[in-house]
Amino acid sequence: MRPVPQSAVLLVSCADKPGIVASVTAFFARHNGNILDLEQHSDDESHLFFMRLEWDLRGFALTLDDVHREFQPIAQQFGMQWQLCRRDTRARVAIFVTREPHCLVELLARQRAGEWPADIPLVVSNREDLRGVAEQFNVPFHCLPVSPDNKSAQEAAAKALLKEHNIDLVVLARYMQIVTADFIRDYPNRMINIHHSFLPAFPGARPYRQAHTRGVKVIGATSHYVTEDLDAGPIIEQDIARISHRDSVEDLIRKGRDIEKIVLARAVTAHLEHRVLVHDNRTIVFQ
Amino acid sequence: MRPVPQSAVLLVSCADKPGIVASVTAFFARHNGNILDLEQHSDDESHLFFMRLEWDLRGFALTLDDVHREFQPIAQQFGMQWQLCRRDTRARVAIFVTREPHCLVELLARQRAGEWPADIPLVVSNREDLRGVAEQFNVPFHCLPVSPDNKSAQEAAAKALLKEHNIDLVVLARYMQIVTADFIRDYPNRMINIHHSFLPAFPGARPYRQAHTRGVKVIGATSHYVTEDLDAGPIIEQDIARISHRDSVEDLIRKGRDIEKIVLARAVTAHLEHRVLVHDNRTIVFQ
Amino acid sequence: MRPVPQSAVLLVSCADKPGIVASVTAFFARHNGNILDLEQHSDDESHLFFMRLEWDLRGFALTLDDVHREFQPIAQQFGMQWQLCRRDTRARVAIFVTREPHCLVELLARQRAGEWPADIPLVVSNREDLRGVAEQFNVPFHCLPVSPDNKSAQEAAAKALLKEHNIDLVVLARYMQIVTADFIRDYPNRMINIHHSFLPAFPGARPYRQAHTRGVKVIGATSHYVTEDLDAGPIIEQDIARISHRDSVEDLIRKGRDIEKIVLARAVTAHLEHRVLVHDNRTIVFQ
Amino acid sequence: MRPVPQSAVLLVSCADKPGIVASVTAFFARHNGNILDLEQHSDDESHLFFMRLEWDLRGFALTLDDVHREFQPIAQQFGMQWQLCRRDTRARVAIFVTREPHCLVELLARQRAGEWPADIPLVVSNREDLRGVAEQFNVPFHCLPVSPDNKSAQEAAAKALLKEHNIDLVVLARYMQIVTADFIRDYPNRMINIHHSFLPAFPGARPYRQAHTRGVKVIGATSHYVTEDLDAGPIIEQDIARISHRDSVEDLIRKGRDIEKIVLARAVTAHLEHRVLVHDNRTIVFQ
Repeated sequence: MRPVPQSAVLLVSCADKPGIVASVTAFFARHNGNILDLEQHSDDESHLFFMRLEWDLRGFALTLDDVHREFQPIAQQFGMQWQLCRRDTRARVAIFVTREPHCLVELLARQRAGEWPADIPLVVSNREDLRGVAEQFNVPFHCLPVSPDNKSAQEAAAKALLKEHNIDLVVLARYMQIVTADFIRDYPNRMINIHHSFLPAFPGARPYRQAHTRGVKVIGATSHYVTEDLDAGPIIEQDIARISHRDSVEDLIRKGRDIEKIVLARAVTAHLEHRVLVHDNRTIVFQ
Repeated sequence: MRPVPQSAVLLVSCADKPGIVASVTAFFARHNGNILDLEQHSDDESHLFFMRLEWDLRGFALTLDDVHREFQPIAQQFGMQWQLCRRDTRARVAIFVTREPHCLVELLARQRAGEWPADIPLVVSNREDLRGVAEQFNVPFHCLPVSPDNKSAQEAAAKALLKEHNIDLVVLARYMQIVTADFIRDYPNRMINIHHSFLPAFPGARPYRQAHTRGVKVIGATSHYVTEDLDAGPIIEQDIARISHRDSVEDLIRKGRDIEKIVLARAVTAHLEHRVLVHDNRTIVFQ
Repeated sequence: MRPVPQSAVLLVSCADKPGIVASVTAFFARHNGNILDLEQHSDDESHLFFMRLEWDLRGFALTLDDVHREFQPIAQQFGMQWQLCRRDTRARVAIFVTREPHCLVELLARQRAGEWPADIPLVVSNREDLRGVAEQFNVPFHCLPVSPDNKSAQEAAAKALLKEHNIDLVVLARYMQIVTADFIRDYPNRMINIHHSFLPAFPGARPYRQAHTRGVKVIGATSHYVTEDLDAGPIIEQDIARISHRDSVEDLIRKGRDIEKIVLARAVTAHLEHRVLVHDNRTIVFQ
Repeated sequence: MRPVPQSAVLLVSCADKPGIVASVTAFFARHNGNILDLEQHSDDESHLFFMRLEWDLRGFALTLDDVHREFQPIAQQFGMQWQLCRRDTRARVAIFVTREPHCLVELLARQRAGEWPADIPLVVSNREDLRGVAEQFNVPFHCLPVSPDNKSAQEAAAKALLKEHNIDLVVLARYMQIVTADFIRDYPNRMINIHHSFLPAFPGARPYRQAHTRGVKVIGATSHYVTEDLDAGPIIEQDIARISHRDSVEDLIRKGRDIEKIVLARAVTAHLEHRVLVHDNRTIVFQ
């Protein structure tokens, strides 16, 4: 079990101007808040400012509710969008799958090993294939089959389940169904997908087949927030593997699995550690 | 200086059937040809067979002319396409450039250091910018400016230069002009380009700008044989570098240069060592 | 489930001389054996020859017993060491663990997903920690605690278990005990370990602590056959991850896990596909 | 030519305590200094604080001399070690070489292409081999041959040359001589070496031979500051390349060159951009 830090995170974005860091850090200094990690990013083109600040709650003079109130004047002065999160708050994560087990096992095993301050109260699938895997980890498995006729009813059922379980984050772990815009809007920047190519190459169906046909020497995987544009949402993490002419489509699928699961796990970790901000369909992923 | 092996290479492609390797290797055993390296590839989908065989010329009983004649029956029996090349034959390479020096320096420095059994008798450009680099390496530099009016005259001049210098391989080392189909047909699988993205992502102009806009976490470079379809020829080599939200377009350009030059050099090396076969717009790159 | 090929593998090593490939391939051609994959390697320094040949059993005129007998003259002529293995023979694998679950989960999940033609009839540990993981996958878990007094009795018990279960391959998946020379000799080139550093850097205990102290920018993992020299056996596979000054020892441990499990899985895959030969404390890993 | 930013860098290290960032950033806010980039690092074990702050000189109310004076009270309050550097100050770099040209060409070509705000007024060697390369780039080449008898005289001559040319940074670009402790002390954290292995593996002579003998599957290169302990100084940058049993020692040397030159260039870039701090034989490399 990884010990969860007794700390909180402030995420900020606003127009860049002199004095932001000074004002924010003075606020924490005033209230005896030791800064554990501060990373800022100024975007040269948009002239926007982004910051992640993590501070120690031990010895800090305020409660988070106090911070919500007392930080308000600074936020207003600079026109900030901002969020506050305790690192030890456990997120509630739902996993959607179809047939491939590798990403599901990866996520369940990490949660079980205590890598994340998160609970996984349910797995949802349009097929029965992976019920055994979920049950192996004692996680309730909900099969909601999809047919041309019941698409919207199925999604309504899925949404009801998520609501019932107070889900914060939806992870599509090789879920082979298109999610509707309506569903996506309920989880803005809180629905993560893994696509089995280095996007924007090979979006859509059967990317390893496409990669084989094109004869690339490198395959990849991409984890991104889901938006209404298929496979075009903000990219959180990507990685690749070298391949050769010797690799058949089946070899690509097999080698690809190892990248997919690691890339997805890294993206979920970054999200759960409050390291990701989204602007203009791109992510800032603080380290 | 890297010593050039006293050896020759046989490259073969044909329909796959039992007995090919046995027939070919028996031929070399019969004439006392010690096989230094043999690599074969059977493509599961097309049922084609590809082979690269390198054998020692020291102690070998035949001349290459003899091989051309005496191997003919085996080639006919299996319906082979085949080529023979001595490893110590020096290839004649022309380099086309525009403004960016890094790939040109890389190629000239490797040739100068003796890494390749190749001569580079000329550098061609549509601009004057890199004359100094070519002259630094004592390689004649030919500036053939391109305007909307003189495109075909310029290409005719370039083709005449290549003919005059008996060029075997044309390398487009960040040459920022479209080459015509007519020109390309003169150098089938003998014209290598470096494109500054991991194709098929971001073909065409300004790939680093495109990559920045899309917010990818990985950039790449692709070296491929030039075909009439822009940036769509058979890929010889690709590699990538990790980037982050901190990287501006200028940073991508800078980091990309290091991949571009290494990827291009690897592709040229593979070609010059007779390790590349092309089938169906894909390459087999023997190791 | 990955379909297991109806094929067999011949692994050969002997002194290099002309005619080996011709003789071997002629043998298979004679008996209507279509070669699916042939890779050979001639070592320049030792003048040894290594080959892996995989051929189709469908339509092949001989049984494997026939091959054992009829190939004998060729093997003798060239002084070969050789092995024959059917690809569809299921190997029997035992996994040894201590406390860390990630490698164990990785191996069990791959076996369960049908990636390997292998059974895992037991997990052995010197502690109780991972009993739950083994049971989750319905694999019998044997806890054999080690104390200064019972080391040899514990090992005798372990050896008896392996014998009883006809184990072909022993995988030390973060087993934190030294295995005796006597035990190792029972599984020559059939006992695979994962060490959590890029050997030969940081052998022995606490490699991530060592890596942090040294301030490296890259960490790694190494999978190797176990020999009597600690962490010095033939390396099968290695890989690395980039790190920075921001990473604490705990971060290295966390990031290292992802490399360890993938590197170990790749090594086990190579072994189970009969792709590994050992010579002079080094491996030849055919592709 | 890469435009040099009109900015300056403050590098700070001190014992960690609350309020440092607030005090420093308030200083810059007070004088209208827009912060372009701020990265801090708190080391959990040593409880030390490190920071790199880059600010815009355009519109800034003070001169650097003013900063030296007015920042003093803050520095004293926190017991800081600190440095100030303008980004547009051109560093003076000397390169030491022996026989291998690839690193020298890499450094000279980058400087020539305007990648660094640096001049390279001389190349020093113990042999004549690379005179031609230096002359190609119009850089004076000084050959100071080393024999058992003249070691100290040679080093005295080298030191005199460096003094005469006001050298800020010494780069050992495959210089195959041991540098004395006395020489090293003149350039503390200002002498960068490239070692052709992933240290701490394979220090000392002939690392590729050592790597081949050990049978590793990955080779590397390491750039580090030179200290009195051979190949044991603070590591600035490392990278690796995958190899296989097919690679002879000569192949490792060839493949290694591509990593060596890129790793060395990255380390020199980080140093010249004032991104490196050293503590306890480890580096903090700000991004």
